[in-house]
This record gives sequence, structure tokens and C-alpha cells, in this order.
Amino acid sequence: MTAELRIDIDRLRAEMTELGAIGRVDGVPGISRPGFSDADMAARHFMAERMARLGLIVSRDAVGNLSGLWPSSDRPAVILGSHLDTVPMGGFFDGTLGVCAAMECIRVLKDARIVPMSPVEVVATAEEEGRFGGMLGAQALAGRVDPAWLEAARDEDDVRLVDAMRAQGLAPEAVATAARDPATVKAFLELHIEQGPVLEAEGVPIGIVEAISGVFKWSVRLSGVANHAGTTPMHMRRDAFAGLVEFACGIPELIAEVGTDQSRVTIGAVTLAPNFPHTVPGEAVFSLIGRDTSLAVMRALADAGRRRLAAAAAKAGLGLEIEEQSWLDPKPCHPDIVAAFRRQAERLGLGYRLMPSGAGHDTQFMAELTRAGLIFVPSIGGVSHAPDEDTAWADIEAGANLLLHTFLDLAGGRG
Amino acid sequence: MTAELRIDIDRLRAEMTELGAIGRVDGVPGISRPGFSDADMAARHFMAERMARLGLIVSRDAVGNLSGLWPSSDRPAVILGSHLDTVPMGGFFDGTLGVCAAMECIRVLKDARIVPMSPVEVVATAEEEGRFGGMLGAQALAGRVDPAWLEAARDEDDVRLVDAMRAQGLAPEAVATAARDPATVKAFLELHIEQGPVLEAEGVPIGIVEAISGVFKWSVRLSGVANHAGTTPMHMRRDAFAGLVEFACGIPELIAEVGTDQSRVTIGAVTLAPNFPHTVPGEAVFSLIGRDTSLAVMRALADAGRRRLAAAAAKAGLGLEIEEQSWLDPKPCHPDIVAAFRRQAERLGLGYRLMPSGAGHDTQFMAELTRAGLIFVPSIGGVSHAPDEDTAWADIEAGANLLLHTFLDLAGGRG
Repeated sequence: MTAELRIDIDRLRAEMTELGAIGRVDGVPGISRPGFSDADMAARHFMAERMARLGLIVSRDAVGNLSGLWPSSDRPAVILGSHLDTVPMGGFFDGTLGVCAAMECIRVLKDARIVPMSPVEVVATAEEEGRFGGMLGAQALAGRVDPAWLEAARDEDDVRLVDAMRAQGLAPEAVATAARDPATVKAFLELHIEQGPVLEAEGVPIGIVEAISGVFKWSVRLSGVANHAGTTPMHMRRDAFAGLVEFACGIPELIAEVGTDQSRVTIGAVTLAPNFPHTVPGEAVFSLIGRDTSLAVMRALADAGRRRLAAAAAKAGLGLEIEEQSWLDPKPCHPDIVAAFRRQAERLGLGYRLMPSGAGHDTQFMAELTRAGLIFVPSIGGVSHAPDEDTAWADIEAGANLLLHTFLDLAGGRG
Repeated sequence: MTAELRIDIDRLRAEMTELGAIGRVDGVPGISRPGFSDADMAARHFMAERMARLGLIVSRDAVGNLSGLWPSSDRPAVILGSHLDTVPMGGFFDGTLGVCAAMECIRVLKDARIVPMSPVEVVATAEEEGRFGGMLGAQALAGRVDPAWLEAARDEDDVRLVDAMRAQGLAPEAVATAARDPATVKAFLELHIEQGPVLEAEGVPIGIVEAISGVFKWSVRLSGVANHAGTTPMHMRRDAFAGLVEFACGIPELIAEVGTDQSRVTIGAVTLAPNFPHTVPGEAVFSLIGRDTSLAVMRALADAGRRRLAAAAAKAGLGLEIEEQSWLDPKPCHPDIVAAFRRQAERLGLGYRLMPSGAGHDTQFMAELTRAGLIFVPSIGGVSHAPDEDTAWADIEAGANLLLHTFLDLAGGRG
């Protein structure tokens, strides 16, 4: 009976621990496997060997996505996976968990001598963390890479994406060959850490993601006049920071008016000029990032944001420029997959909540290719992209068991 | 009759233009004569020669203040003057005007063969712009230099004040010898550009300063938690920038509650950490500068500022540290001098307004030594400490004539 199958948390932890040694640098905290770095490629090599040892059919595409298929079959596969790259000084679980949990699912099936009706394919995607500003691996699988972007993309150190790929023996010019035929894929399931505080705060081990938030990113410039802070009366100032404050203190009201409890509006980076204590700021340049799971709400946040920025600039006598640096639509997870996750969580007696994903994930591009779904396990303190990223092993176990049984639900198994 | 005397604006402009050539660097805009730089010392040398040529008794003190006295007398002198140092890439008028206008006053008297009853002393103070964080020249004349500060003071490039002075042949250890005996001084008059927009905006050529604002400077640190901006719901954030915004948007209310129309509260420098667009700011460090001409109002601004910062920090769940980096009491100009300026402006038919000085000036320390007063002429666009600092020559002429006649009013003249 497949119903009694359970993953082996010690075996999963052991594999994650071996993988987690790759990308450690003496004296540098955390794990550093930036996309297409040597450490990233070493992790892919390690995982390819594990796949081969497990009897999977191993392949790698032109952009570095790694695939392990089992059994050989002409039926469409259920893909389980996530990414192997990390941010610099990143954590132990981000991405790694989804790949290793998929491997563990296969080990459980093999141990139980259960061959799934639909084959299972473990995919470790490439360059999910956006070193080059995209989510290249999943985009390539979904056939959603803009060749002009691929050619132009550079990292923060001005390294070209195509050069970084070629240095690792990959073939950016062949990106189109990585696109999967949707007929070969039945579904995509990803297990990931939440990277936020909600599940821990509510004491719930599983988050079933209904939608991945869309996100817009603006760079906003307010231009006033830099003046002596002592000699310029308050009413004669054109204080760029005062304009930013006027706008920013209205953000809660903006969300209350047009947003939802899934809306996030963030000013994370601010640069004033000249940024001297004794000078009224003449210029304020800041980032504004808006997120919601509804496209209509995102548009309403953006519209209201523009109106409020214009009003704040006018009130403070400032020039205003808004540069939209990116816009990504929200992406719902597939209702069939959400239903399967819920069904199996209930059957397994696992507490869960439905939730949005505020961060981007491979799932959002895989959803362009197939029915895709994403589950979260709690991040302690909500911390991620940092060395002290952590998740309780009991929660990892719960999430991996849900992944296993949702796979079986979708694939069917025969003893 | 002294009543008909007028300064010669062409002669004043010519001397200022010659002086303004000192501290020009090819390819660098503006005038750069930082305190105790070679250019600063060259300007003092130039002015000492001019004083000698004019028949003044020239002396220099241990900290670089330059003095030209005329005629030799055992009566207390009326000192006219300002400073010769500039900020880097500073303007043409700041400081220079007050020294050159004083020289022009003596030329007018000499041409008219008028010998003042009280001697006139032109003083060009040293290091007014605060390269080393103080106002050393005027402080030394007033006997207000803290020896521990003198020993410790460094500029932004970490050059020690005492080293910079010794390199120019000055004697920091003899600072006490620069202190003037108050019995030798009758009054101090300074003509300076406004460095603010008020006079130009009101179309008034003369500002008679009633008081120099006091100023407190704080460095404030709000500490929250840096979190992923996508995964952290608004209500679970401890957003340091949101705390800053909460406080800053209450500044107009703070001034309305406890301030006056002379109050200035400025946030000029802001540093967020990590200052990434996709991360909720975990820390905000910012400068807060408060000014008023009333000590009681300054104290009320500081008290209310602390209360409001604490409330904003509590509301946003943030830690709060306030470091008071400096506190300088307001300094009134002497009512006798204010009255003399008003009397002579009215007699000369010059429009004027009473006003505070939001910036610091030599007058504030000279007021510790003697009856001191300060007059302003308009700054075009309120600009100063910048290459495009400018004042109409007609306004310079009005200001210099007021200086001349206020001197005569205080000193008495005989034909």
C-alpha cells in the first residue's frame, strides 16, 4: 500500500548535508553557489552522480538544468524539483530542499518496489536566484527566454551571462533546445522553504501556495533644491526627502484603499543627495516594489502609487521621475495541484494553510509549461538568503511526505 | 561731514576680485581655501600686505587671525571683519565680503581725511568654516577654545588640527595668547551674505540679525529586522525606514506644537541597511538637526523630538538610539548694535528686515567678547558654499555703506 509510505528524514538530511558542503568557503558564512559558478556546477555534478547511482536516466540541457528520469516511459512525467544555485552567503535549505526531497521520494518508491504509472523526473534548475536578473533554468524549460535579454544580461560585477555559461561548457545559443514539449510533462511540484514568517507565527507546518505574487519594481527620483539647512526657512524648502516622507507615510492608506492583505509595498533602498546633515536634500532616489497575487490589484497599487507620488511631489515642489524597471504578472498555481496537495495533507493529517508566495520561484515559470504547484515549510524567524536560514527537520519531513504522496496521487503507483 | 561718505563699490569689487583669485584651481569650480591650507595662508598674506600698504598696524596671532589697526590708540577698537577661509569649491562672497568691506571703510575714511575717535580694527579670522569642526579663530579671540578639543580635532581626511597649524608656522599650544582682553574692544560688526533665500524673496537689501540660531545635531539609529520584502506581510515587519517615515512625517506638527517660524528641523542624511530594493530595511541611521533662536524653544524641540522618536520606534517595533553629537546655544546679537544698524539703515534710506541667522558666524563667538552685530545682504537663489554663490553689487554696496556708517555711529569721527 502506497498510503503507508514515508520518507526517511535521516537519509534526506544526510544527502542535504553532503550537498551543503559544496559552496562553503573558509571564513565565509553560509553557502555560496551563485548561478554558473564552479560551486554551482560542482553541486550539479554531485547530484548527477547521485541520480545515476539511483538508476535515473540523467540528462543536462543547454542552460545547465539537470534532469533524472525514472522509469523510462513514453508517458508524460511528473516533475519534482527546485534549484541548486544559491545567493552568495545563502542558506542550507533554499532550493536544495526541493531537489533532495524529490530524490528521497524516488528512494522511498524504489525501496518499496513501487514503480509509478507516470514516470517521475527530478529537475534541478539553473540560475534561479537571479544572479543575472532572470530565472533562466525554469524560463528555458518553459520556452520563455527572450534572446535579446539573454545576450544583454550581466551580473553585478558586469560579467555577461553568456560568458559565464560558456565558461562552464554550456550553450546559450542553444537555449531554445531546453524548452520542454508540454506533452511530455504531466505536472510540476516544488517543495520550498517559506522564506517568510507566516507559517512559524501560526504554528502550521505546511503552506499550500495558491498563487505567486506578481511584482513591479520602480526606481523613483524626486528632485528639489539642496539648500543650507540653517538658512532656508521650512516654508521655502524644496526638500526631496520631505517629498519621499509625504508619499511613504501614505503607504498603509494606499494599501487600505486599493490593496489586499496579500499586498506588499516596500521602500528598501534610499539614496539622498548630497546626503549631508546640514543640507536640505536636493534629491531622493528610492526603490518602490509592489506585490500582489491579483493582477487587477497590482495595477490598482501601481495607479494609486503614481497618483500619490505625483501629489507628494507637487506638495513639496519637487520634480518626479518614475522608471518601471520590471513588471511580472502574478501566477496562480494550478487548481488541480492545489486540490491534490490539500487532499493529501488532509489524508496525512498535516496542518496546512493556503497562502500566497511573495517571493519568486521556479514554479512561476513551470506554470507556463504544465500544471504546477508549490508547497512551503516554515522558515525559523522568517530568515532566508542568509547563513542562519533554518527549518525544523520535523517540518522538512512533513513537507517531503506531502510531496511524495501528492506525486503518487498524480502519477499513480503500482506495487 | 561723515553723513555723506559712501563706499566705492568699484574699488571694493576690485579687491575682492584679486582676493578671489587665491584658491582657484584649474578645472575645479569655485574657490578652495580650506582653513590652514596654503591657499588660505596665501589669502592672509595678500591681505596683510594690503593692510600694511593702507597704513594699518598689522599683527597675526597664534592661530592665524590677522588684524589691521588704525589709528594707533589706547582706546578700545571697533572691530570690523569676517573670515578668509572657504569651504572646498566655495563661493566668492562668503567671509571675503566682510573683510574687504572693512578695508574699504578705512579707505573711505582715509580719503576723506577722517580719523575715527575709536580706532578701527580689521580682523580676518581663521578657520571659520569648520574644516576641523569648530570656529577656531573667533573662539580663540573670545577665549573659548577647549584645549582637549584643540588637541583632538581632525578634519575629514583625518589630518590633525594641530599638525595643520604647525605646518603653517602657527602655534596651537599658544592658543590662549590669542584671547583678546575685552577692555581693548568696543564692538564687533560683521557684514556677510545671507546664505539663504529670505532677503531675495522679499526684495529687501539688508538683513539685521537679531540672533544666531542655536543648533543641536543628533545621529539617530532605528533598528528593526531586515526581511524579504516579498514574503514578509506588512503587519509582521519591523521596518526601520517605516519608523523613520512615521517620525519624519510628524516634523511639521512638531514645529507647529513647540517651535516658531524661526525653527528649522532637518533630516539631511539617511543611511539604510542593507539598502536593497527587495529587503525590508533592518536599520535606518539618520541625522536630525534642530535650530531656533530661543534656547527654550530649542529645548522644547529636542524634548518633543525625543518623545516622537520613541513613539515612532515603539509603533514600528524598533530599537532606538539617539546620540547628541553637538549642542550650541542660540546667541543674541547685542541690542545696542542692532539699534545702531537700524538707526543708520533708516538714515541711509536702506530697506531692511530683522531676522535670525540660521547659519553660524564669527559673530556668535565675538558676542562672547564684546557687543557684536551681524548684517546680511541677499544671496541670489539662496545659494552659498557653492561656486555659483552670488550677490548683486548694488546690495553689496548697500551693506558696506551700512557697515561704514554704523562704525562711525559707534566710533565717532573727527574731520
